[in-house]
This record gives sequence, structure tokens and C-alpha cells, in this order.
Amino acid sequence: MTASSPRRIHMHENDNVAIVVNDGGLPAGTVFADGLTLVEGVPQGHKVALVDLAQGDAVIRYNVTIGRAAKAIPKGSWVSEQLLDMPPARELDNLPIATVKPAPLPPLEGYTFQGYRNEDGSVGTRNILAITTTVQCVSGVVDFAVKRIKAELLPRYPNVDDVVGLEHTYGCGVAIDAPNAMVPIRTLHNISKNPNFGGQAMVVSLGCEKLQPTRLFPKGSIPIRKADNTIADEAPVVCLQDNHHVGFMSMIDSIMQTAEQQLEVLNRRQRVTCPAADLVVGVQCGGSDAFSGVTANPAVGFATDLLVRAGATVMFSEVTEVRDGIDQLTSRAVNEEVAQAMIREMDWYDNYLKRGGVDRSANTTPGNKKGGLSNIVEKAMGSIVKSGSSPISGVLSPGEKLTTKGLIYAATPASDFICGTLQLAAGMNLHIFTTGRGTPYGLAEVPVIKVATRDDLARRWHDLMDVNAGRIATGEATIESVGWELFQLMLDVASGKKTWAEHWKLHNALVLFNPAPVT
Amino acid sequence: MTASSPRRIHMHENDNVAIVVNDGGLPAGTVFADGLTLVEGVPQGHKVALVDLAQGDAVIRYNVTIGRAAKAIPKGSWVSEQLLDMPPARELDNLPIATVKPAPLPPLEGYTFQGYRNEDGSVGTRNILAITTTVQCVSGVVDFAVKRIKAELLPRYPNVDDVVGLEHTYGCGVAIDAPNAMVPIRTLHNISKNPNFGGQAMVVSLGCEKLQPTRLFPKGSIPIRKADNTIADEAPVVCLQDNHHVGFMSMIDSIMQTAEQQLEVLNRRQRVTCPAADLVVGVQCGGSDAFSGVTANPAVGFATDLLVRAGATVMFSEVTEVRDGIDQLTSRAVNEEVAQAMIREMDWYDNYLKRGGVDRSANTTPGNKKGGLSNIVEKAMGSIVKSGSSPISGVLSPGEKLTTKGLIYAATPASDFICGTLQLAAGMNLHIFTTGRGTPYGLAEVPVIKVATRDDLARRWHDLMDVNAGRIATGEATIESVGWELFQLMLDVASGKKTWAEHWKLHNALVLFNPAPVT
Ligand SMILES: [Ca+2]
Ligand SMILES: [Ca+2]
Ligand SMILES: [Ca+2]
Ligand SMILES: [Ca+2]
Ligand SMILES: [Ca+2]
Repeated sequence: MTASSPRRIHMHENDNVAIVVNDGGLPAGTVFADGLTLVEGVPQGHKVALVDLAQGDAVIRYNVTIGRAAKAIPKGSWVSEQLLDMPPARELDNLPIATVKPAPLPPLEGYTFQGYRNEDGSVGTRNILAITTTVQCVSGVVDFAVKRIKAELLPRYPNVDDVVGLEHTYGCGVAIDAPNAMVPIRTLHNISKNPNFGGQAMVVSLGCEKLQPTRLFPKGSIPIRKADNTIADEAPVVCLQDNHHVGFMSMIDSIMQTAEQQLEVLNRRQRVTCPAADLVVGVQCGGSDAFSGVTANPAVGFATDLLVRAGATVMFSEVTEVRDGIDQLTSRAVNEEVAQAMIREMDWYDNYLKRGGVDRSANTTPGNKKGGLSNIVEKAMGSIVKSGSSPISGVLSPGEKLTTKGLIYAATPASDFICGTLQLAAGMNLHIFTTGRGTPYGLAEVPVIKVATRDDLARRWHDLMDVNAGRIATGEATIESVGWELFQLMLDVASGKKTWAEHWKLHNALVLFNPAPVT
Repeated sequence: MTASSPRRIHMHENDNVAIVVNDGGLPAGTVFADGLTLVEGVPQGHKVALVDLAQGDAVIRYNVTIGRAAKAIPKGSWVSEQLLDMPPARELDNLPIATVKPAPLPPLEGYTFQGYRNEDGSVGTRNILAITTTVQCVSGVVDFAVKRIKAELLPRYPNVDDVVGLEHTYGCGVAIDAPNAMVPIRTLHNISKNPNFGGQAMVVSLGCEKLQPTRLFPKGSIPIRKADNTIADEAPVVCLQDNHHVGFMSMIDSIMQTAEQQLEVLNRRQRVTCPAADLVVGVQCGGSDAFSGVTANPAVGFATDLLVRAGATVMFSEVTEVRDGIDQLTSRAVNEEVAQAMIREMDWYDNYLKRGGVDRSANTTPGNKKGGLSNIVEKAMGSIVKSGSSPISGVLSPGEKLTTKGLIYAATPASDFICGTLQLAAGMNLHIFTTGRGTPYGLAEVPVIKVATRDDLARRWHDLMDVNAGRIATGEATIESVGWELFQLMLDVASGKKTWAEHWKLHNALVLFNPAPVT
């Protein structure tokens, strides 16, 4: 099949719509190989009706009702978002609980990567000195210090990859005793323990902030190794307001001296051969289009199954993007407890959105719609496929740290930055990000592998996208082949190969999820 | 009086407590000149009882009941926070409305500074190229571009002081149609129009984000001057997802080309003599202690009156820090409309906090309490004095832009970064920040003059604090003399003199106030 012959994709035999694959879309009068004729032009990624639909008929994609026809839609028409009435959200009672018992997939053995094994058993994919901050007040000072550490100290510690200030907007001017304040606090606590930071931590504090170092790290909660190889029961804290700081440079000197002790310990880390089981992969999507659920996300889903077979951990997230498929998830839960935990997270988020006067439909973007995703139901079906087909073995609330392996539902907002930040807190050591519209997303803390859903994006953003899943739509590759390619690339990147975002040093902000008020 | 003789300050003849001035506090047995004897040690900045207080007696400071004695407190005791029961918040009905008619202060004439006059009449104190971003997605790319612009372009435009990427965490993954979403959107819109940016603007957009450039800047809302001196009816937008961008460097080139056009126009700006009336000063406090309301804030209040007399604009803010003094403010309003607007802002914030399960008492920090501020009532009384004694002539909701001169109440959270960001949006061209505990706070967009409340802080942070108001407590200076000094320094800084935060390039993040949910 040539690139110019008309091409469409549907995801399930019961679907009564398909999406147009060709770059630039297809004009009215286009005849497909099976005789289907377009009665009007259909943009790329948008839906064409495969049958005559009467007003009120279910429009089915992914074998799911993504909406009802707002009026009669003749076969061959463009099923645009205006023609779809969105169904209400699935009620959270009477859901199927652990009803699907997928036959266990065969273990996948023999795959390894070169990682930095930590004392707690976790494995880093990079060797990074992280400087935790308790409050935004110290950011300017930490920026100043990090520049000097990179210029003056880092060259003397060749095994350390980078120095990162964990800056954020939390820590003061916030209702720190509000019921929901535990979310940002535990997020920041757990991020500091990300495997890429080697179990080391240091804190820069102002002194008078609400989020005191002892609140962020209660005594004993973050033991670190000292340069003399003994263990300290708490991370060192540089407090800018301490009386012994006289003049700005004394603060910078304190930070640099503390940093040097950490660098000395981190510099002893060496990459060793680790089984693929030590990967902790966070998957998410952003800037999605109709191809997300057809190419990149199914390929990620295939790779997710490979990872689970290899004994690794995979987190999928983004509450509003699974909400409409909650029945698929509860039925795949390994047990009732896991299913109920998922329901609790959905219910919490429903209420959170309701308090703000909105619902799950606030998720979709102009770009989603331009890309052919009519509503959140359709978007969700395409998003969930990143989770593959394995049983779901655990659930995390926002900001919690992983305690089990396998396929985990880590509840987070869909916001790319908040989701990424929460997956960092959970303990992710590798991030997979699919995009249809395109985003230069990157994190300083963990490598991000970006997967393009479309050929055209992969071609134009050739030095930003790491994998082109668009070849699935054109028939040049399969979901399986791209899934394997991605799996191999994960092992390579985990071993030190740089992603494009790392090459250009593109770093987005940490964005803490704070459902509590500011003051 | 020597530095070591015991010294205390009370603010009003009706006060039955005073605060201890001496560094390190005073021990039990200390005898003051008037015979008052401490029955126990009192830390610096903390309160001593001037009379015997029975359980339930009002504890009065600033001639206001800051609490009731939880038990009997003998004269000469330390009135610690545990001994004070906080009164409930003042009800918002039956407030005195525009009852105080202060005699108009004599106009202050002849004070000028050298500023950059803009076409809309506003005046910049710095000449900065600002690059507006619609969404966090583009931050990494904008950081990369800004570094190149500074290194390669800026040296050729010597009249331009700096290049700043207006980065933030808003723009996508947010409920952009929620009732409260107008707050962050108008904030970002108005920040781009800050006088320091010379009426020029350029936007870097991803393409698929919720906050589309046309939503941020509706057509005609931000006319800019082109290099050929004609007016364009909208700001140029670099959209990363545009089809003509092939490869990462093509995005960087687009941003740099657009930046260069702006630099050419901005480079034509010249400082000219402007009356002090063109100053738009935002005042706030952070890291407050008991001296804030005794030294720095009263000196700022005196300078506020000087500015108002000179025809300038002064904004004071921080809702939770005026809430307990709302009756003082409504009575000082120029008219009923202004008073009602203030009440509306208080009421909105009461409800906002309540939805999150907290109230105004969530404001105070461990540092406040360590510094002697027992509760939010006491803190508020010390915070309000920054507003001086002029009539309050206008009220802004969060993110709104100023339309009138004089003393304005700009409603904002007390969070230093959110308050500063909202004052930037209002059109501030100079920022005054008082601190007792100490903060290295700085902004890239507008110079920040930092005022220390205590001698000890000013001495230790000699290259971070611009003014030492602690001399008021030791008797070396008066509120009036420091107020005049501050006023003169404002004119100098507005004319180009660098503050310490500018010297070290200490820049805190823009933090948008988003009372709506993320998605
Ligand atoms: Ca997504
Ligand atoms: Ca996302
Ligand atoms: Ca930054
Ligand atoms: Ca304050
Ligand atoms: Ca403040």
C-alpha cells in the first residue's frame, strides 16, 4: 500500500467508526479499497462513519460507546465532535470486580541493563545529586549554587551525571495543616528518595517556612551515607537563616561544602548489570490525538506487558483519562482490595473536580479535538491501552511511593507535569511519554523517552522524538515490532544512552499537586 | 541608651503588652528603667505583660484585642502564643464604611526619577524583553532560547537590561473553563503588559494547549510596535507545533528571530525624567517577626504616605493579613463602593479557605511564632501598617490591572510569590519587601527593595538587605527617617540603581494563583 492510497483504522470489529490515517486527511469522494466512499472531507485522525447512524445511535470505537449521534449521520460522513453527545460518567457502584483473570503471560527472562544499584535495592538509571528545597524562597540561591557546583565541583566527580535543584512553589504561603496538604508534602519527601539520587539527600531550607526540614524528613526517615562511609540518620540541612551565615557567599559556601560531601559518596556509584525487573517505568501521554490510541499507546501497552513479564514495575496514571474505562480496570484488578482502591481514587477526583465546578470533560484540549479526539470518553479509551493487558496489582494515591512490583495504577491528574512529578515520587527510574501533537517535554531527574504517534510528527521533530510509532498506521511496522523496539530502547536508555530531551537538556518544572488552599 | 540596656516597644498607649527589643532577648530578673521587672526570660520580639492580666482579659497590642488570656498572666511575664486564645474573625456585616475622613495630606512635589516612559503613559524602571509562554510544555525550549538570546543578541542592544521567559505551570492540564480560571488567565495576560516590558510582547506557544494564544491575547488586546515603527494589532506568536518547524533548531531560530525584532524596538527606549507620581509600588512582607509591625512596616507605611502625597500608586495586599483589620480598612475607604469591594474580597477568600477545610489562621508560620507573632490577629495588625494612613481609593481582584492611582488594596494571597506575581500583573514597577526572619526573595521582572526589620538581620545579611529598619528599634533612627530613606532609595532604584537581589541575580518563580482544579 502506498502512502497516498486512502487508509483507515478501526480498533475493534464492533466499531462503527474508523479514523483516517493519511497525512492531510482525505477529500470528499475518496473511495477506499472496500468501496466505502467519503461523502465529505475528513481530516487526518478524525472519524468516518462505517454505517448509516440514526439520531441517538451509539457511536462505537474501541468496542465502547464514545457518544450518541446528535443527528442522523450517513455512512461515509465525518463524525465530528459536534455530532457526538457525550455519555454520562460510569457510576462507581456495581462495577465488575476482579472478574477478568488473564492467563499469566510467560515470564520474559534474560534481559538486562546497566544500572546503579542502591542500598535499598532500587536501581538508578542516572547518577544525580539532588538538592531538596523546602520552600520557593530559596530557589534563587539554589540556582546560583547549582551553577557553581556544576562549574567548579562536578568536573572532579566524573561518575556523577548532573546536579539538580528540586525547586517547587510549595513550602510556605500554603495551608499546611489542611486535610489535603499531605499530598504535596509526601510527594516532595518521596521525590527526594528517587532511585536516581542514590539514597543521598541534602536540603536547603530558609528557616521560617511552614514546611520545616523536620516535617519534610522526620528523624530517621532519610538515612544517608557520609563521605567516611558511616550512616547518618538524617540528611544534612543548609538553613539560610542560621546565625552563622554572614553574607550571601557564606550561604553559597555552605551549600557547596554540603554538596561536595554528597558528590564524594555519589561518585562511588558504578553501573552494574541488573535484570529488566529493576526498571520502574512511568507511562503517560500528552498532546494526544486520535493516533495516540492506535499507534503509540498500543505499542507502549505491548511494551508494558513485556516489562511485567520481565518482573518490572510499570505505572499508568491520569485519573480523568481512565475514569470512563473504570470498569475495564476494576475487572482487571488482581483482587477486590485493588479494585476498591481504584474506585476510591476515582471518587476522590470526581469530588475534587466537582468542588471546582467542573467534571472529567474539563480534561480535553483544543489540540485533542483538532487531532480527532471528540471527547474524554474517546480520549480515555486511547489512553488506557498504555496499560497493556496484565492484571493490575496495586494502586497508589497521589505522591505515594511504590511498595510492590507489576502493573500499578498510580492515581494522578493528567497534567503532564503533575503526573510526571508524582511518578517521580513513586520511584520511577524511566519515563515513557507518547504524543501526537508533539511536546518537547523533559525532566532533569529521570530520562524521558518520547514516542510519536504519527509519521509526520516523527519526521518534523526528528531530533525531539525518540521513537516513531506512526509507522504502525502506515503499515511499515506493527504494534508488536514497535513494542519490542521500545522495550530494547528502554534497556539502552536505562543503561545510559541519552534521549533527545537529555541531549538538548530540556527540563520542565516539578509541579506539585496541591489540592489544599494557599494562604 | 546603650545596645545592652533593656529595651521594649509598645505601639499604642492602650496596649497592655510590649515587645522585647534586645538581641537574644532578656533574662528573668531584668529591670527596665521604669521599674518593670521580668518574672521570666522573654525572647527577642516576644511580648511581656505590662500589667497583671486575669484569665479571659483582652491582650491588647496596636490598640486591638489580639487574644484573650488563657489563664492569669502576672505583670512581667512572657505572653507566649500558648497563653493567648485567638478571637474569632470579625463578621463582614455592620462594618464601618468610609467613616474616617483623613485630612488630605499636603501634596509632595518636585521628586523625580529617570524612567522609561511607555506609549500608554506607564513608566518602566527596567527595560526588559519578556517572552510570554502559554504553557509549561514550552519552558525547556524557552530556557534554551533565552540563554542563546542573552549570549548572542543582547550584547548588540545595550539599552535593553535583560531577557526573561515568563514561565509558569498553568496553560494545560487545568480546568480552563472553571468559574475561577479567569484568575490565572488574566494574571498572565496582565503580567505581559507590565510597564517594564515596554508595551512589547511575544508569545511562545506549543499549539495544542488549552490556553491558546488567542485566548490569552484576544485580537487587538495587545497591540505592539514593529521594528519598522508601525503598530501590529497582536503580539507575534512562535508556535512550536507549526508545520514549518522541522528540527529543534528551527524552533530556536524562530524564537530568536522574533526576539530580535522586539529587541530592536526596546533598544530605542531611553530613560527620561518622570515625576514620582509614575511609580507603581507593590508592598508586601514575608518571613515576618514581631519587629515587622514595629520597624520596617511602619517605615514602609510612612513611605507609602509620601508616595501617595506625590501622586504615585501604592498597592498593599495579602488578604489573610488584613482580614482581622477589615474594619480599619473599610473605614478608611474613600467611598462605599471601595469598602464593599474590600468586603467582597474578604468574603471570597473566607469561602475559598473554608472549601479547603481551613481558615485565616492557616497563614502563620513557625518562623512567625518563633519571631514573637502569636497569631494571625497580631500578625495582621503589623502587616496593615504598610498601608500608611491615606484613604484607600481602589480595590483590585486577584490578577486585575490597575486603572486608578493612589492607595489601592490589591487582594492577593499572602504567599510571597503569588502576591508578587499578582502585583506584577497589576502593573507594579517597583517592589518593596519587608522581612524579619530574612528571605533572599527577588524577581526577574521588577526590582525588589528588601527592608530588614532587625539590626541583627541587616548586619548578617548585609549584601541581601537594602535597608535596615532595625535602627528604629535601637533608637538610632526613626520611622520618619527610615521612611524618607526608603522613599529616596525607591527613586534611585527606579532610575536604575541595582538592588542586592539584582546584583546576585536572585529570581524567584512566577506563581500563578489558580483557585480552580487541575485535570
Ligand atoms: Ca494523557
Ligand atoms: Ca498527561
Ligand atoms: Ca527555572
Ligand atoms: Ca506578609
Ligand atoms: Ca507575603
